[in-house]
Amino acid sequence: MAVRVDLNISLDGFATTTDATPDNSFGLDWGRLVEAYTATRTFRERVLHESSGEGTTGVDDKYAAAYFEGIGAEIMGAGMFGLHNYPDDPDWRGWWGDEPPFHVPVFVLTHKPRPAITVADTTFTFIDASPDAALGRAVEAARGKDVRIGGGPTTARDFLKAGLVDQLHVGITPILLGRGIRLWDELRGLENDYTVTSETAESGTIHVTYRR
Amino acid sequence: MAVRVDLNISLDGFATTTDATPDNSFGLDWGRLVEAYTATRTFRERVLHESSGEGTTGVDDKYAAAYFEGIGAEIMGAGMFGLHNYPDDPDWRGWWGDEPPFHVPVFVLTHKPRPAITVADTTFTFIDASPDAALGRAVEAARGKDVRIGGGPTTARDFLKAGLVDQLHVGITPILLGRGIRLWDELRGLENDYTVTSETAESGTIHVTYRR
Repeated sequence: MAVRVDLNISLDGFATTTDATPDNSFGLDWGRLVEAYTATRTFRERVLHESSGEGTTGVDDKYAAAYFEGIGAEIMGAGMFGLHNYPDDPDWRGWWGDEPPFHVPVFVLTHKPRPAITVADTTFTFIDASPDAALGRAVEAARGKDVRIGGGPTTARDFLKAGLVDQLHVGITPILLGRGIRLWDELRGLENDYTVTSETAESGTIHVTYRR
Repeated sequence: MAVRVDLNISLDGFATTTDATPDNSFGLDWGRLVEAYTATRTFRERVLHESSGEGTTGVDDKYAAAYFEGIGAEIMGAGMFGLHNYPDDPDWRGWWGDEPPFHVPVFVLTHKPRPAITVADTTFTFIDASPDAALGRAVEAARGKDVRIGGGPTTARDFLKAGLVDQLHVGITPILLGRGIRLWDELRGLENDYTVTSETAESGTIHVTYRR
């Protein structure tokens, strides 16, 4: 059982973008940040549910496929689920659509818990818990498989700072966003607890893995 | 003629370290930041003046060697020369020793110009000038060869922001320093003016090049 984090960040360390508008809820920057990931065959099959056999199959796809392997439960922050968008609407089911790509129990961290909901084969459970306690719940639900800390970056950083993460993989897109939430804040010396490897993809994306 | 910047930065984007002490003027972090670079055969020969034939000869050395190729003049900030250490001592000759590794005219940017000095085959000229004006001086001195903006990161960033840099190479050491001066601040969208390539070395260092 391992606790894993996978994130896409910019060369200047930002894991979120800031140019979303009412008309474009992701913004242009987000598309650029995850361009290499969303071009992979794995993303097209697993997230977009295409069966065209299209998409890249190189280094980026290797990491994309690994992202989905062996995960038994996921923890995410309220923002990643989408709770902040309609905080007062008890019927809001997040922005992951009718077929969420998780397929495992998901624990959503929030200071305002609400009843669990099930969408297709994914059950979202809303809990107000410390990283340690949330991980306990997720480990139990994962039944021996890995637990992913899905994000956002603030949630991932909380688990990294608490020393709870066994493997951190970042796909670094070599663009400069200049603003957003930085993944690396307050993590000075993190590498001391890990073995670090790096690899570049055909797309220019740099894959860095911290492994305990 | 190209204007070039080469810097070592940490994974979280810091180009300076913060743990220097009177007893260790570079600090421990600096050694970790430039470990792969200082291990190269090129560094040992060109900077340490060793002739042992030792040192790494892989990807890191390729970039280290390129660093010294075709440079005809260099521009650096006052801090990189060492002016800030003894600002009121007119006899202070900087911290580059009796055999500075530049071997070309060096222009030191300072708001308090002083007479030029020559150390071995390197002449340091102190000028109070805008990036544009300083570059004009350096281009003239370089006689058709490239001009390097040596650093520190604030000086390099000033030239990048002014659109004066043709090639930026960073060697990214996959460690997290957590504090210092960030290279990437205020450079949002820089990649739009460049072609970006990335390559990883045996050491784990990630080499990213922005080339116009």
